[in-house]
Amino acid sequence: MTDKKFYPEESACFAAAIEKLKGQKVAVLGHQRPDGDCIGSTVAVVRVLISLGIEAIGLNRDATPAPLGAFVGETPMALAADFTPDGHMAVTVDCADFKRVGDRLNEFFPEVALNVDHHISNKLYGSKNLVVATACATAEILAGFCLDNGYEIDAVTAQALYVGIATDTGQFRFPSTTPDTFEIARRLCECGANPSSAAHELYERESFAKIKLLQNFLDSLTMEFEDRVCVGLIENGVYGETGATIDDSEGLVDYARAIDGVEVGVLIEDRAGAVKGSLRAKDPKYRVDQIAKQFGGGGHACAAGLNVENSSIKEFYPQLMQAIGEHLKNL
Amino acid sequence: MTDKKFYPEESACFAAAIEKLKGQKVAVLGHQRPDGDCIGSTVAVVRVLISLGIEAIGLNRDATPAPLGAFVGETPMALAADFTPDGHMAVTVDCADFKRVGDRLNEFFPEVALNVDHHISNKLYGSKNLVVATACATAEILAGFCLDNGYEIDAVTAQALYVGIATDTGQFRFPSTTPDTFEIARRLCECGANPSSAAHELYERESFAKIKLLQNFLDSLTMEFEDRVCVGLIENGVYGETGATIDDSEGLVDYARAIDGVEVGVLIEDRAGAVKGSLRAKDPKYRVDQIAKQFGGGGHACAAGLNVENSSIKEFYPQLMQAIGEHLKNL
Repeated sequence: MTDKKFYPEESACFAAAIEKLKGQKVAVLGHQRPDGDCIGSTVAVVRVLISLGIEAIGLNRDATPAPLGAFVGETPMALAADFTPDGHMAVTVDCADFKRVGDRLNEFFPEVALNVDHHISNKLYGSKNLVVATACATAEILAGFCLDNGYEIDAVTAQALYVGIATDTGQFRFPSTTPDTFEIARRLCECGANPSSAAHELYERESFAKIKLLQNFLDSLTMEFEDRVCVGLIENGVYGETGATIDDSEGLVDYARAIDGVEVGVLIEDRAGAVKGSLRAKDPKYRVDQIAKQFGGGGHACAAGLNVENSSIKEFYPQLMQAIGEHLKNL
Repeated sequence: MTDKKFYPEESACFAAAIEKLKGQKVAVLGHQRPDGDCIGSTVAVVRVLISLGIEAIGLNRDATPAPLGAFVGETPMALAADFTPDGHMAVTVDCADFKRVGDRLNEFFPEVALNVDHHISNKLYGSKNLVVATACATAEILAGFCLDNGYEIDAVTAQALYVGIATDTGQFRFPSTTPDTFEIARRLCECGANPSSAAHELYERESFAKIKLLQNFLDSLTMEFEDRVCVGLIENGVYGETGATIDDSEGLVDYARAIDGVEVGVLIEDRAGAVKGSLRAKDPKYRVDQIAKQFGGGGHACAAGLNVENSSIKEFYPQLMQAIGEHLKNL
């Protein structure tokens, strides 16, 4: 075991913030449509608080997606719709903007005692804000805090934090993966995290419907702008035909981006009279967030999304191509 | 930096073996149809030998697959067909059986000075055999040897070893991933390995033809044995239609295995009058190597392959299903 401190300053602030929560009831809030880092971070904070004698519950607007359910264990979690606050203090994890917890939870908690996040765009809406933008995941920050402060990391907590890191780095593939990421992964494994059982739950329990959706998406791929842009579609009726759900479209756009020579991958979906778009660039110089912004969307330089009401793929496709064309020309 | 020794005993043997190679010319041999661990290990050993003043060259029967080419750098490498030995000593990496280097190299080198490998089935055919079956990759063993012995690990060597580990663990997903795997990954990053640029070369340079092959494969998926087995096909003509090469079929079978409830994923290919089969199980209790063995194939409990001459998918499919059915019944 090493004595290395991952976040010496922030870990001390975290310990002080936790100290203030003693004797209180705490609700740990994640963002709507929770992902691996959100669920992993929520589970970990709830469990650590409980291990320190603090009553805590995880709260989300939306249900935990099926592949992540295995990492919750017996951790107390509730849906916003089923919850009434009773003097709870709010802690948020992985929420750049407090709006992202959803309306009902926004109303329940006029104040946020502690905001832990890794998004550079974090709006620092908490009474205490611990934002480490260099971290690959909120779970990486929380793992660092626990290790630095010597908090108990049981096997469920270790696995939850590991899952947050593994999913938010795309299995250690994104540029946010640093030597510290591997060091923290190692120490979580020593606390009981199990990479292969995590991978089994995350990647080896795909529905056949999702595979059929992928097949349909790949069949639709079209190259644009001399093969620099690859566009895939989910047209009206495809969810019905394949039996897939809209959650199953997660990650499809990465297949478009992964093609050699493609610089921007695009997914356009027909969704009940509206259109949803996802844009993924290989290089941050492309600023797909700026393209998305033209249609009321937003996101990061390399990963952005948009929703357009009262439109269709047929109507939206040429509009989006024009915007992408302009963007490529002006680079 | 930690002083931990990864393989204290074997590292000392490795250092002694290298000492004996001083003043000699060395050919570092990998297995035919080289993968990431083979290329990464070959590149690393050649570079380390050169850094120690030993003339060395990497040798393989088959060309380095395109996605791995980026990790070779200026390391001296040659194809067996273009090479004539001139008193070279042979070192093998990642070869369980010396036959796996291919006929021509078998003939060139009647003796193998050093055999470094992680396959439990290694035949110990070298004058010196350093086989660590608990290691996730041959590259993990070699990285441990270099770190333990304080050999120079330049950025190209670090990246090559990282790629060996990342590919042989399926990006840190297989059960062979241990705390030491992460510790070694961390230390390789500190020596200049770059996980995201490795991932870019490995996973973001797919050919459009490969994507079309995947689409075709997914379209062919059929469930058998009450959805416990999922079978995908590459029929005659599909390579031509999609423009894909046989190397592009690598990894397809994992899509069949990854479906929820599926216990064994299967790929059957028509190949010019012969049939090639790949079997992947989620759990080692299935022993797909035993199924493959009935058709002259073999492999590991969870990953096996076979080739049947003078057959076709149409003829072979029912034979294979019968063998799988018997195996499932007798579990």
